[in-house]
Amino acid sequence: MSRAPNQMPWAQPGRRFAPMDLVSRDEIEAIHHASLAVLRDTGVHFMSPRARAFLAGQDGVTVDRETEIVRFDPGLVEATIESTPRSFTIHARNPAHSVKVGGGHLSFSNVITPPYVSDLDGGKRDGSESEFRELLKLCQALNALSFVFGYPVEPQDLHPETRHLDAYRGHIELTDKVWRGYTLGNDRILDAIEMARIARGISRERLLAEPSFIANVTTNSPLRIDEPMGDGLMTMAEMNQAVSITSFAMAGAIAPITLAGAVAQQNAEILAAVALSQLVRPGAPIVYGTFTANVYMRSGAIAFGGPDLAKATLVSGQLARRYGLPLKSAVTNGAKLLDAQAGYETQGALWTAVMSGADIVAHACGWMESGLTISREKMIIDAEMIQMIADILRPVAVDEASLALDAIAEVGPGGQFFDCQHTLERFKTEYYEPLVSDWESLETWQERGAKSAGERANTVWKALIEGYEQPALDPAIKEELDCFVERRRAEILSPTEKAISAGV
Amino acid sequence: MSRAPNQMPWAQPGRRFAPMDLVSRDEIEAIHHASLAVLRDTGVHFMSPRARAFLAGQDGVTVDRETEIVRFDPGLVEATIESTPRSFTIHARNPAHSVKVGGGHLSFSNVITPPYVSDLDGGKRDGSESEFRELLKLCQALNALSFVFGYPVEPQDLHPETRHLDAYRGHIELTDKVWRGYTLGNDRILDAIEMARIARGISRERLLAEPSFIANVTTNSPLRIDEPMGDGLMTMAEMNQAVSITSFAMAGAIAPITLAGAVAQQNAEILAAVALSQLVRPGAPIVYGTFTANVYMRSGAIAFGGPDLAKATLVSGQLARRYGLPLKSAVTNGAKLLDAQAGYETQGALWTAVMSGADIVAHACGWMESGLTISREKMIIDAEMIQMIADILRPVAVDEASLALDAIAEVGPGGQFFDCQHTLERFKTEYYEPLVSDWESLETWQERGAKSAGERANTVWKALIEGYEQPALDPAIKEELDCFVERRRAEILSPTEKAISAGV
Repeated sequence: MSRAPNQMPWAQPGRRFAPMDLVSRDEIEAIHHASLAVLRDTGVHFMSPRARAFLAGQDGVTVDRETEIVRFDPGLVEATIESTPRSFTIHARNPAHSVKVGGGHLSFSNVITPPYVSDLDGGKRDGSESEFRELLKLCQALNALSFVFGYPVEPQDLHPETRHLDAYRGHIELTDKVWRGYTLGNDRILDAIEMARIARGISRERLLAEPSFIANVTTNSPLRIDEPMGDGLMTMAEMNQAVSITSFAMAGAIAPITLAGAVAQQNAEILAAVALSQLVRPGAPIVYGTFTANVYMRSGAIAFGGPDLAKATLVSGQLARRYGLPLKSAVTNGAKLLDAQAGYETQGALWTAVMSGADIVAHACGWMESGLTISREKMIIDAEMIQMIADILRPVAVDEASLALDAIAEVGPGGQFFDCQHTLERFKTEYYEPLVSDWESLETWQERGAKSAGERANTVWKALIEGYEQPALDPAIKEELDCFVERRRAEILSPTEKAISAGV
Repeated sequence: MSRAPNQMPWAQPGRRFAPMDLVSRDEIEAIHHASLAVLRDTGVHFMSPRARAFLAGQDGVTVDRETEIVRFDPGLVEATIESTPRSFTIHARNPAHSVKVGGGHLSFSNVITPPYVSDLDGGKRDGSESEFRELLKLCQALNALSFVFGYPVEPQDLHPETRHLDAYRGHIELTDKVWRGYTLGNDRILDAIEMARIARGISRERLLAEPSFIANVTTNSPLRIDEPMGDGLMTMAEMNQAVSITSFAMAGAIAPITLAGAVAQQNAEILAAVALSQLVRPGAPIVYGTFTANVYMRSGAIAFGGPDLAKATLVSGQLARRYGLPLKSAVTNGAKLLDAQAGYETQGALWTAVMSGADIVAHACGWMESGLTISREKMIIDAEMIQMIADILRPVAVDEASLALDAIAEVGPGGQFFDCQHTLERFKTEYYEPLVSDWESLETWQERGAKSAGERANTVWKALIEGYEQPALDPAIKEELDCFVERRRAEILSPTEKAISAGV
């Protein structure tokens, strides 16, 4: 590729439109009250002893010691919703890449931790540290990606007990964007928070005031929050770091088959986690995460990319707005090839996410094969879709110069605008420049090899990796980070495991 | 294909959401006033002597005899906007397929009169009468298509002078949906209207009360309305039949390069045609048609499928709402293959059209190669996208049964819903069934031949044509139609031409 790909600069598009309301206000209230009833009558199984012990001491909470089920008074749930912030900033080590959440600022993430990676050159293969690092470079280079969520591919060859240390160090070294880690218990989340602090070179006090890291808590549907998630959620709240709480309430399997029932259950699970978070620290930054999907009954697989998931997303957006919580939703598709289905299902899911009022659009870049594979070509194609949405949401100039009455009068009926001054002054900059879409004539496209979107995307990601520049990192910060990683590695691994890990 | 494709029934989805406002009310007013200024100061070239003669007699209109330019007083333009109806019905010969325009009822058409047709079996070839008739069968069979616009492919082997007679007879015989004809002067539009009347078996008086046919008037940008369009528009208004007025104001070529300027010019052209229509017959049914696109400066081709066209569509929707006029917009893409670009650009354009508040979504089925080719496989893929949008817009049940509190309590934390009664009662009907999307597992998809969306669509259109049933037509109507066609053919063709046409 002779020239650098045509990217728009990194920026968060502003939501300058009303989100789509799919059901009425009364219907949202009915779902809300159903969720409150579930929390009061059926309750949620908190598997974390720490969470149960903490909740047992709260007014409006009842903990059944035998079943470990926790029930919540509706009034308490309502009060904890009230204490969540409507918007906040997650600070990146490069302040230009800090991400605003809530308040109408959109953000987009890569597909989160698929086990496999693929591209047209090498086909599909297992995730590894070297693949992971190559993908981080692409995540950094792609301006359409606001931040990096989870691992762009699972670095399967890294030792599982210390994988998070090497992986998060990779995030910090190879990108300067916000990153999202895993809520896998207390120790690992504390490692992640400390690494985010080191990366920014700030004090622990400042970290408490400035969320610098985001993690995700996934409920274990139906109505269960497992121990690592419960512990991690409490620690994240204590440290005032951002948490998205996501229910993957797969309708017909681990949630009611009806949309209203699945969303009511999802909502109950999220509100239970919100209550725990806000009881630990009122005002801790929370994101409402929806991933309520349905099983495709013919196959038993999940109907990613279909309208039922879209509807659940739109209704979830209404609930998030009801609560004043930022929303995270997901962009998925069911395609196995980079074909028309991959294009139309992804674009439909992206528009749905945007119309749902999502502040964070997760899985928006690279998702293939039900989220099990990240495709380098799909990353480029998805970045184009994100850019196009961002371009649509840019303010449109409507003023004397753009209304062009003088040019219209000058050209007059039946004329042409090609060589009028108004055109000549603007033709190079007025319009969107595509990243991978082909807008040439049929003849030119044929002359250039009649390439598909996937083949063109292949050229684009190669150019991006070729042009990748590692963002500067203060050597003192790098040294502190390395020291931390090695100290923690030593603490985590027993002497025997260390020897195995070192290949001894 | 062993079973019939999974289609949703023919229906017009209801728009149950607020359209997307891209610019402010003040900015819409600024564009409106710019258009009024253009009509007052620069004016529109009406090439039809009949239109000029009629307009010369109207208060608030000035016709320059030398330049043939017509200028309009703003007050007159505002008054004619006021007389347009907000909604109306176009009556099909099958009343179940009558189309509501305005009032929140969406409708979708095929790509309009491309010269070529393609499919995976036969590749790309010229349009012909037999291809045209095969495509009409597919248009009839596809429930996602609300009606048939223009010719699904140009029947190039039909005599140009009488092509409309044979083609419209094809529409009437092979489909029972509303069809849209061509505003090519007075005689042909009268032929079309008469054929629509015969097809419905109604009187001329009833036809005047019940629009039964729609035609399109395309302005000749910048600021020109040619003779056949002007004459046809007047005749359609006299007969109270529906007209969409469309400006193809290609920005940077035949309109200002700026979005605001191009839309202001488009709007001036449409308002001039609205004025003519409403002066002929106040209340004649009119649709505001936008097709303002931009030239892709690198290639000189039109940037179909890009965000600039999307923005022009959204702003045009705001203008149409300002005027209380139903909106027609278009779904386009720039792809040359049935690849991811064809999928994501089409879906993006479809969502844009829906969010623009379009009542009529034109070109929504089959568009390939900048609208020059109708692809049978693309028709199926596009029908899937339309169905998915329609499914999203179906009312969502939120009531005691769907909220499923009993099922949630029955299953409880950590359980599963597969075999609970609430699931068993609904699993066959609860969710969307795709037409061409593959939601099988990766393994099943591979076992079934690892087919792309295009290959699967190929199977679907074949099944639809195989299962096609010609809609019943009263033999008396058929006879009247045939008599009309042959009489008009004889009148149109001179004896010599008739002999050539008959192959003598």
